[in-house]
Amino acid sequence: MLIFDITTSLDGFVAGPNPSLEDPLGQGGMQLHDWATSTRAWRERHGLEGGEDNADSELIAEGLARQGALIMGRRMFSGGSGPWENDPNRDGWWGDDPPFRNPVFVLTHHARDRVEFENDTTFNFITAGFEAALEQAQAAAGEKDVLIAGGAETIQQYLAAGLIDEFEIHVAPMLLGSGTPLFGGAGAERPHVELTRALSSPGAAHLRYRVIK
Amino acid sequence: MLIFDITTSLDGFVAGPNPSLEDPLGQGGMQLHDWATSTRAWRERHGLEGGEDNADSELIAEGLARQGALIMGRRMFSGGSGPWENDPNRDGWWGDDPPFRNPVFVLTHHARDRVEFENDTTFNFITAGFEAALEQAQAAAGEKDVLIAGGAETIQQYLAAGLIDEFEIHVAPMLLGSGTPLFGGAGAERPHVELTRALSSPGAAHLRYRVIK
Repeated sequence: MLIFDITTSLDGFVAGPNPSLEDPLGQGGMQLHDWATSTRAWRERHGLEGGEDNADSELIAEGLARQGALIMGRRMFSGGSGPWENDPNRDGWWGDDPPFRNPVFVLTHHARDRVEFENDTTFNFITAGFEAALEQAQAAAGEKDVLIAGGAETIQQYLAAGLIDEFEIHVAPMLLGSGTPLFGGAGAERPHVELTRALSSPGAAHLRYRVIK
Repeated sequence: MLIFDITTSLDGFVAGPNPSLEDPLGQGGMQLHDWATSTRAWRERHGLEGGEDNADSELIAEGLARQGALIMGRRMFSGGSGPWENDPNRDGWWGDDPPFRNPVFVLTHHARDRVEFENDTTFNFITAGFEAALEQAQAAAGEKDVLIAGGAETIQQYLAAGLIDEFEIHVAPMLLGSGTPLFGGAGAERPHVELTRALSSPGAAHLRYRVIK
């Protein structure tokens, strides 16, 4: 299955206003993820100790176990929009121990050699388009799911093409006022969806949808 | 308590694009409310037979039981934006048996005599501002809640003034792409909120929030 799994504010933004290299999620955007970053499952995946063992942590562990490969846009790889986003020498935003531990397929216009890490993360740069990226990601994922990691434009591209099977939105209890909306707005192809699960947990409402094809 | 209770699309709109007198909720906007209009509780309140006895119906009955008075903007009273919205002779959108059965306080710039119906609905036209309307509504509601019935601008006005205590958003499983957003966007005063309940039911996710003051 092709899925995405993303946190939005209650007013529907995945990042706040004025993103920068220092603050790629924009003003207030980091706080969206407090529900996740406080959990043991998220912290473990990011090489950190401690964290809460709660319903949110279980939800994250469950999501991580489904992933066999990931797809991301070039801005998510490089750390947001800016003059660096097409720099072929930039190793991305994710440091020496990227938290993906699976093959990651980066949509880009700039061919680059594959980058490998000891923790099983690989970055594979795909210049042949989003459908080609999906084919390669599905081959890499095997029986597991392919996750569109983001950003919003990349998710919108796959949604508009009717390729998404299922998605989960974690609605953080905060309003950002402006920023990057998850959904594409007027003119975008809009999928028909069915709510399959709604959970509340200490830090967010978790809404899972199936795309009706 | 001062509350609101409203249905949005998954992309955050309370009405679709191009509202008109014939179609005050805009394109696709009526479908947002399918989860409610199919229930016995909603139909009974609107003088209709039948309907589903399900979790959504219980939720609606519970919401109706809390209401002691309502506040609405002039466009919600008159049936959307248009040349008719300030017509002092127009009796509003709601027919001879309005579904409120409580005192309704309509925010307007045009003084009008109070209108009474046999079913206990009264329309009271308030020209002294939204805070005056709240005082009168609270006096009328007694121990019960005052519900901001809408539209979005009226809700935003009370939210920005820090007057809302609690709200529930019913997220319908559909995307509208454009229309009237529930929240006010950039520049609006943004409340701090806490998720107190999330339910899923056949037709919508129901998210209840408390405003942290």
